[in-house]
Amino acid sequence: MAKQQIGVIGLAVMGKNLALNIESKGYSVAVYNRSREKTDEFLQEAKGKNIVGTYSIEEFVNALEKPRKILLMVKAGAPTDAMIEQLKPHLEKGDIVIDGGNTYFKDTQRRNKELAELGIHFIGAGVSGGEEGALKGPSIMPGGQKEAHELVRPIFEAIAAKVDGEPCTTYIGPDGAGHYVKMVHNGIEYGDMQLIAEAYFLLKHVLGMDAAELHEVFADWNKGELNSYLIEITADIFTKIDEETGKPLVDVILDKAGQKGTGKWTSQNALDLGVPLPIITESVFARFISAMKDERVKASKVLAGPAVKPFEGDRAHFIEAVRRALYMSKICSYAQGFAQMKAASEEYNWNLRYGDIAMIFRGGCIIRAQFLQKIKEAYDRDPALSNLLLDPYFKDIVERYQDALREIVATAAMRGIPVPGFASALAYYDSYRTAVLPANLIQAQRDYFGAHTYERVDKEGIFHTEWLK
Amino acid sequence: MAKQQIGVIGLAVMGKNLALNIESKGYSVAVYNRSREKTDEFLQEAKGKNIVGTYSIEEFVNALEKPRKILLMVKAGAPTDAMIEQLKPHLEKGDIVIDGGNTYFKDTQRRNKELAELGIHFIGAGVSGGEEGALKGPSIMPGGQKEAHELVRPIFEAIAAKVDGEPCTTYIGPDGAGHYVKMVHNGIEYGDMQLIAEAYFLLKHVLGMDAAELHEVFADWNKGELNSYLIEITADIFTKIDEETGKPLVDVILDKAGQKGTGKWTSQNALDLGVPLPIITESVFARFISAMKDERVKASKVLAGPAVKPFEGDRAHFIEAVRRALYMSKICSYAQGFAQMKAASEEYNWNLRYGDIAMIFRGGCIIRAQFLQKIKEAYDRDPALSNLLLDPYFKDIVERYQDALREIVATAAMRGIPVPGFASALAYYDSYRTAVLPANLIQAQRDYFGAHTYERVDKEGIFHTEWLK
Repeated sequence: MAKQQIGVIGLAVMGKNLALNIESKGYSVAVYNRSREKTDEFLQEAKGKNIVGTYSIEEFVNALEKPRKILLMVKAGAPTDAMIEQLKPHLEKGDIVIDGGNTYFKDTQRRNKELAELGIHFIGAGVSGGEEGALKGPSIMPGGQKEAHELVRPIFEAIAAKVDGEPCTTYIGPDGAGHYVKMVHNGIEYGDMQLIAEAYFLLKHVLGMDAAELHEVFADWNKGELNSYLIEITADIFTKIDEETGKPLVDVILDKAGQKGTGKWTSQNALDLGVPLPIITESVFARFISAMKDERVKASKVLAGPAVKPFEGDRAHFIEAVRRALYMSKICSYAQGFAQMKAASEEYNWNLRYGDIAMIFRGGCIIRAQFLQKIKEAYDRDPALSNLLLDPYFKDIVERYQDALREIVATAAMRGIPVPGFASALAYYDSYRTAVLPANLIQAQRDYFGAHTYERVDKEGIFHTEWLK
Repeated sequence: MAKQQIGVIGLAVMGKNLALNIESKGYSVAVYNRSREKTDEFLQEAKGKNIVGTYSIEEFVNALEKPRKILLMVKAGAPTDAMIEQLKPHLEKGDIVIDGGNTYFKDTQRRNKELAELGIHFIGAGVSGGEEGALKGPSIMPGGQKEAHELVRPIFEAIAAKVDGEPCTTYIGPDGAGHYVKMVHNGIEYGDMQLIAEAYFLLKHVLGMDAAELHEVFADWNKGELNSYLIEITADIFTKIDEETGKPLVDVILDKAGQKGTGKWTSQNALDLGVPLPIITESVFARFISAMKDERVKASKVLAGPAVKPFEGDRAHFIEAVRRALYMSKICSYAQGFAQMKAASEEYNWNLRYGDIAMIFRGGCIIRAQFLQKIKEAYDRDPALSNLLLDPYFKDIVERYQDALREIVATAAMRGIPVPGFASALAYYDSYRTAVLPANLIQAQRDYFGAHTYERVDKEGIFHTEWLK
């Protein structure tokens, strides 16, 4: 029997769809799942395709050509470790294990190192795009041994989403780099969604817009520089009518946001690296507050807001100000996320190529957007750019749009509308462009109560003052 | 030879000062330090006191009455583990090891469990107040076995700071509870310092105040509801003149804030617990941005701010608005910190008494303040209070002060002054008191692109929509 070119372990929806995607590009596939039933079910679905089922790890491994290429699509965490342990005795030097799950990058670093000691390659591949992306073309962010990546690169390129003919995948870097970039991608996604939610909330409460009007605004925005998948589906969402009530569906959905933890990881890692990441972090906290529904309902009956007059300004001006505030905040959020990747690249020695990362975000994944091309161009102009805000294109936008963001933050403050994302974007912009911040006072306090010392503005050195003398 | 009542390991400044403090209250003390020189030096300093030096772990342990009480004042992390390993073979059932370092609470949980298996008690005691507090009266937050705490309680009560005759120490809870509360204390300290720094920055840049005027304002504030150690030392700091330049010292201190990581831990734990902690987290990020001095100086030459006119309003009104904004933001920050402790108490089964914790913060530690009495009273009124903002005293303040906070956030936005702490306090207040947030849109998006399902406002259940149909 001829050997199969690649094996997939784990036949939940992501695993199945990736197997079908790979096969559709002309590769022969072996599959294995812990429960025989799932395998049989899938073989029924995949009848006539070049996919063979196997019913033991040994049978699975033996069905693959060497060096073996094995894509793990099992649950992140302990199940992934357990599966690797099962595989190990059957693998040979040079074999390549690929983890396509939503794995924490430090687990990937550890597994890469452990398997490398046995001569086995381990690639942690971030896969973005959900079920549909897995089937029709995801964005793939592989990290691990470069020589191993070369062997699986043709498969990744074949199955990835394409934008302008370019596959949305590239080698990210060593060990956990791929899963890391996927994590930051998810954090950025949290930020994008929060900022859009704040724009929606402002239009709804300041201008009193209904779903039909909101659809018009977002559909219009999607034609311009905000053009992106998330703006597109937001416009779409406002058109959906609930069959039971006849109301717009968005109005009957409960305002408790769920999450799976990758936004949290991004924030926690930024805190470890010493990188300011306020927009994404405020977005994570905003989901936490949204989840406290019962407490908020109770608080809404106790705590008053400000006295607010009906809006009497120019509606078109306000809509445009919200659009500009949204775009500027989005730019600040990406500036933070890319600065975090730069810090990580230095910390973990990954040598990340930020422009290429922006390029592979352009298709397949949730944050796909035209504006990523601008990020690519910025890093083409200066591959060592320390912050996107310093690039001429982004500098020009934020300088012109800052008045709108200021107006929106001030208006929201006076009207009692929470805009944690917009407000933290503005505070970040104003902090970042301020040569002298008030941290001199913080250093004075720390030296006063804890003898933590300080530096001076006029000469080098470390100083301490006896403040009470 | 009579045995000593308590032993102290580690004779850096905190260990020395605690040993002296304990001895001054009538307890006999044995000390040990890894290097003989430090021990001899200290014995010279402590001549005539009831302190004996020992030069091996065995000698040290044998010098103590049983059950032994051993206070570890060594570096947090690996050195603490190493010292425990050295002690273990010499200890007996019922002995009590106390870790007075700045230890991460999960390490304390682990050590408590490991030593309990040998019948040895382990108390993780948060000690706040710096060098001076250690000597003259710190705030002490002990966690661990309650029966072991009973045996060391008299010593803790003797050496702790006193407020209205009450010692600033109380049993916090099992295993890591004491170090946890100390961690949150430090996070709150980060928030307090950032909010004060923002108030300073506004007064300096909007009103153009110099150090002498700033001193007057903070000294005045310290007479009212903001009365606290940090406001007091801030007022003091503005009076200090640099001997070299003749300028106010605060003006020659470099605006790069340092940190030791406990603020970061607080934020990371809030993210783990699902608790919104935006003010403390923005304060940590603000320190990160302050540390990027060279990059900010560069950015200040590239990125423009808004066009700003000289201030033409009422100066007294503005100063009072800043004061109110500061007090309201501080209340929101403590509301978040205490909500985090509540979540932790539930997660780790600690049964924390929030009012008692507020009471022991009133003396010895950096965040000591009159206003902690108000927190105690709030928990006396309702021990199960879910959020401080719902207590009548705090509700009254924030409702009356919100207009000032709104005005300050709006003014700062229009004038390009970064106020991440104030802005996130307001966003938190407005989010918390809003019954319906825009998270319904986020849930619609998540269901659209990832089939993550949603709940409805009008009935129970989990729902999914085929959005593209």
